[in-house]
Amino acid sequence: MGTRALRGVARATASFEIESHVFYLFTQILSRRNLALVDKLKPLGVSVPQWRILAVLQERAGCTMNELAGVTTIDRTTLTRAIDRMAETGLVARRGDAQDRRSVRLSLTAAGKDAFRRVLPRVVEQNERAMRGFSAAERADFRAQLHRMVRNLDPDYDHRNATWLAGRAAAIAENRRNRREAS
Amino acid sequence: MGTRALRGVARATASFEIESHVFYLFTQILSRRNLALVDKLKPLGVSVPQWRILAVLQERAGCTMNELAGVTTIDRTTLTRAIDRMAETGLVARRGDAQDRRSVRLSLTAAGKDAFRRVLPRVVEQNERAMRGFSAAERADFRAQLHRMVRNLDPDYDHRNATWLAGRAAAIAENRRNRREAS
Repeated sequence: MGTRALRGVARATASFEIESHVFYLFTQILSRRNLALVDKLKPLGVSVPQWRILAVLQERAGCTMNELAGVTTIDRTTLTRAIDRMAETGLVARRGDAQDRRSVRLSLTAAGKDAFRRVLPRVVEQNERAMRGFSAAERADFRAQLHRMVRNLDPDYDHRNATWLAGRAAAIAENRRNRREAS
Repeated sequence: MGTRALRGVARATASFEIESHVFYLFTQILSRRNLALVDKLKPLGVSVPQWRILAVLQERAGCTMNELAGVTTIDRTTLTRAIDRMAETGLVARRGDAQDRRSVRLSLTAAGKDAFRRVLPRVVEQNERAMRGFSAAERADFRAQLHRMVRNLDPDYDHRNATWLAGRAAAIAENRRNRREAS
């Protein structure tokens, strides 16, 4: 850390107040939003971790458990339990080598995609509730600031996403080839 | 929800992308920050939930388990375990009626206050890392937007905080009276 950064740390330490602490506010917001979301999703038979899995898999079909754990940041026990449950209820399909669990590829079934579409408006409602009164420009600025924070904490973030997206393009192309050969 | 809000939901549903989803970005930021923090706090013998308890109790001495659970948003099992551990290691003092656990008041011991002071610079370092490149004005704006979100999700937030602060003032006054009478 440079001198300027160290001065920043000293100043912020001296003036620390929990109500101004950004990460405290993050947890305050997330916990209130998740609490509201649990109630909204219960009638649809989907938990908050399941929603997060649906949201990631609908954009990242074919990802492994490792990738899914990295992207959702759900702890492994909860994630494994949720995926087992979603496979049982027919929302998630697992493809690959049963001997090598790391190579198993996850994707949404038609029922899973349908569940995502049914859940999404409930989630978006909570987003809108949280961001009530924010103009379009304020929302865009706010998102840009969050992206800056992610990149500050994880310099490899964009690179990893790009690698993943390239992998996804290859997977889609392969799926198409397989379908052509099968028909 | 009004017509305008419903239009907002429809528009946001149609254009949903996980990388622009504010709550997704929150979890991405928090998980990366917590992972870094675990490593920084390990040499100090403090876990992330323990840090959060220290941070709340240093401003809210005398709060009950219920209040602490509400403010930290740590789940009950983790919270009870952390408080038991912190009482054993002498960071937290419990005062009150052992028969009625709801009335037990928690506060930091001198060792607890000392632990808070030792941990705080490590936490502030992570904040600075996350907000690198943000100007003072951008930081203030960002915090103001987070506060708007908390209030949107929880209209009673400021009122509850004010009630708590009034209660704290009364508790401090009572402590002073007790000390005068005892001396």
